[in-house]
Amino acid sequence: MINQERVWNRLFELSQFGKQEKGGVTRFSFTDEERKAKDLIAFYMKEADLVVTEDAVGNVIGRKEGRIEGAPAVIIGSHIDSVSQGGIFDGPLGVIAGIEVLQTLYEKEIETDHPIEVIAFTDEEGSRFRFGMIGSRAMAGTLTNEDLQNCDKNGITIAQAMKEAGLDPNKILDAARDPRTIKGYVELHIEQGKVLENNHLSVGVVSGIAGPLWTKWVLTGEAGHAGATPMEIRKDPLIPAADIIQFIETETKKYPNAVATIGQLLVKPGGVNVIPSQVEFTLDLRDINEETRNKIEHTIVAYARKICSEREIEIGISTLQRVTPVPCSKEIHKVIEASCKEIGLEKFELPSGAGHDGMQFKDFCPIGMIFIQSKNGISHNPDEWSSKEDCGKGTTVLYKTVLELTSLRTSLINSTSISNTKEEN
Amino acid sequence: MINQERVWNRLFELSQFGKQEKGGVTRFSFTDEERKAKDLIAFYMKEADLVVTEDAVGNVIGRKEGRIEGAPAVIIGSHIDSVSQGGIFDGPLGVIAGIEVLQTLYEKEIETDHPIEVIAFTDEEGSRFRFGMIGSRAMAGTLTNEDLQNCDKNGITIAQAMKEAGLDPNKILDAARDPRTIKGYVELHIEQGKVLENNHLSVGVVSGIAGPLWTKWVLTGEAGHAGATPMEIRKDPLIPAADIIQFIETETKKYPNAVATIGQLLVKPGGVNVIPSQVEFTLDLRDINEETRNKIEHTIVAYARKICSEREIEIGISTLQRVTPVPCSKEIHKVIEASCKEIGLEKFELPSGAGHDGMQFKDFCPIGMIFIQSKNGISHNPDEWSSKEDCGKGTTVLYKTVLELTSLRTSLINSTSISNTKEEN
Repeated sequence: MINQERVWNRLFELSQFGKQEKGGVTRFSFTDEERKAKDLIAFYMKEADLVVTEDAVGNVIGRKEGRIEGAPAVIIGSHIDSVSQGGIFDGPLGVIAGIEVLQTLYEKEIETDHPIEVIAFTDEEGSRFRFGMIGSRAMAGTLTNEDLQNCDKNGITIAQAMKEAGLDPNKILDAARDPRTIKGYVELHIEQGKVLENNHLSVGVVSGIAGPLWTKWVLTGEAGHAGATPMEIRKDPLIPAADIIQFIETETKKYPNAVATIGQLLVKPGGVNVIPSQVEFTLDLRDINEETRNKIEHTIVAYARKICSEREIEIGISTLQRVTPVPCSKEIHKVIEASCKEIGLEKFELPSGAGHDGMQFKDFCPIGMIFIQSKNGISHNPDEWSSKEDCGKGTTVLYKTVLELTSLRTSLINSTSISNTKEEN
Repeated sequence: MINQERVWNRLFELSQFGKQEKGGVTRFSFTDEERKAKDLIAFYMKEADLVVTEDAVGNVIGRKEGRIEGAPAVIIGSHIDSVSQGGIFDGPLGVIAGIEVLQTLYEKEIETDHPIEVIAFTDEEGSRFRFGMIGSRAMAGTLTNEDLQNCDKNGITIAQAMKEAGLDPNKILDAARDPRTIKGYVELHIEQGKVLENNHLSVGVVSGIAGPLWTKWVLTGEAGHAGATPMEIRKDPLIPAADIIQFIETETKKYPNAVATIGQLLVKPGGVNVIPSQVEFTLDLRDINEETRNKIEHTIVAYARKICSEREIEIGISTLQRVTPVPCSKEIHKVIEASCKEIGLEKFELPSGAGHDGMQFKDFCPIGMIFIQSKNGISHNPDEWSSKEDCGKGTTVLYKTVLELTSLRTSLINSTSISNTKEEN
């Protein structure tokens, strides 16, 4: 139905911009490499007979009109910037597949009721300015002048980088879209995890995008001589920390979409023969359902406070970031599932643990996401890989989904709804 | 009975050598400060009518002959070197109290059956060369030429430092004593822990010196994206590490003298949103009974291997050091207890978690130790403190103990025996 070879070849063609000698691709926003990649994307879009524009933050937009004048558009989006030494699939696949959908429609001379836009968003990764999703924020109208003050490692602000790239940072509001002009948003992306691979599946339907809640925990006890301090009189903060870590795992496992990670842990003062005085650790807690995430958070915090109090250990918990999770639209979810079924793929649902541009469209438009299998779950790495066949299958599902979404018969409620409530059962 | 004021004043008089502007005393071995401190100690010894000699490693020895010619001597020992910015009690108290015992005997014109020696051992702390108990090792005949190759931070070996101090490193065997010339060894020391303070006691009898077993544990799992990796398919080594840490505490608490400390713990790679691939930690495990320590070690290791295997986590355990614990002599223990009772002190037994010179006399001569209360358990710190009264009480117990040990009626079995077997009950 779609041209799998073309998708595959374009992934490699695009990867020449920012290709690293040591392997992988480094393509930061507002750089020469990114400019060249955007130009190639615009070239592909024109080949698909799209009207190509670039908005105030550099989002590259290719539009095909629909049969119904003034009808809201179905948006297919993703990004073409990368992390440092990233792979060739994370982002580009979604943009190239989106263009492929439109080129197929063009070649087959298929018209749709609603218009369709494919968008390559500016800077999703946030690798340059440690502030990402710039393009999608701008489109949702939530990008602020303050945001543009974030600096890269050379002290260049987003605003300055925009100017150097020929954009006017004072005009970012021009990129904001009226939500009434958008029917829905759909994105194809690599999974970046191992769930599909472990289940021997090519394609999955995303139930929602889990928002990370990052907290920092500091447990303070009392240092002491490892030999001269009997167990009974110790105030070693590492023991309750170990208890809390185990409790976090047990509690999180009760909810199918929740994940919790203690990625950093420091023991002070750190002598082999010194009882720790302080333990610091971070907790990354995610779920696609904010209520579930809050529930887990409260249970963990209550437990931690209780056991620290029993052991006379001080506990301090501070929030590093609290990103709202975004459940996918139930309607788009059903359309994607039906598209999978149509081409003989098993219907399979999974959450997205990583963030995506679609998150910015919470309370803006209904969103849907399609994942394809990532080899070994590796991403943000030169070894990132998905097979040609899976790229093809994902693009086909995207094609069928977009065809259905652009039909007048498919109405979408312009508010997100929770598509996965297993944990409530 | 003894002169408490003299003991107290001498502690402060000695502390002038190596006094630090920022607080505390730094008196490393084979330095000018240590030389001056040794000279003052020799001066005190002569005041107590002792014959003063210095052996091949710089141990300062003051000897009083007994009534019986050729009888083995009772040794009172401790050290006068310090850690960097240490306190004024750790070491000097034992030497000054030992001299006080002999000065009291001299002033009271009391003769003893056995001879008595008070020894200020060279370099107990090991702060300069990261290799300690040099003087006591030499006396026990276990110091080797290889040991003398340990360097200080300026690259100076013990052998070189000895030469600079006028000692001949080729003659260390001259410092080795024939164990038949020694009846027993007794030392007064500050506790360096909080056990006596928590029990509102001035003096305690040491049951044995716990030998540290240091092991390094490396648990290896699989890193992954904190968002994109469901809990069920993770191989996070921090979870079993937390389990093991809790198990270590629970298991160790079953044995009254055992202590276990996880003082260092590293989580790699250490990103907030990255599942750890590896956790490294150290375990410092001590007991005064080697069998008990082995038993705890084996139970912990077996448990750790089991749970790591269940979770498909690799586990590697390596030994950093394995020091044999030294139980105190039952006979000396009884004599110290009787001495406490005589002056109205409660009989109270506790293990020494920290190492002391007496450890070197395992399989050499029977040893006994007396502890006095440390304020807040602080040691190796300018805030190290014991009250004048407790120094006095400790010295009195030492006096009475030595009087009894030097009597012909008290015979000691020249082999150590386990004095504390609570955990076997």
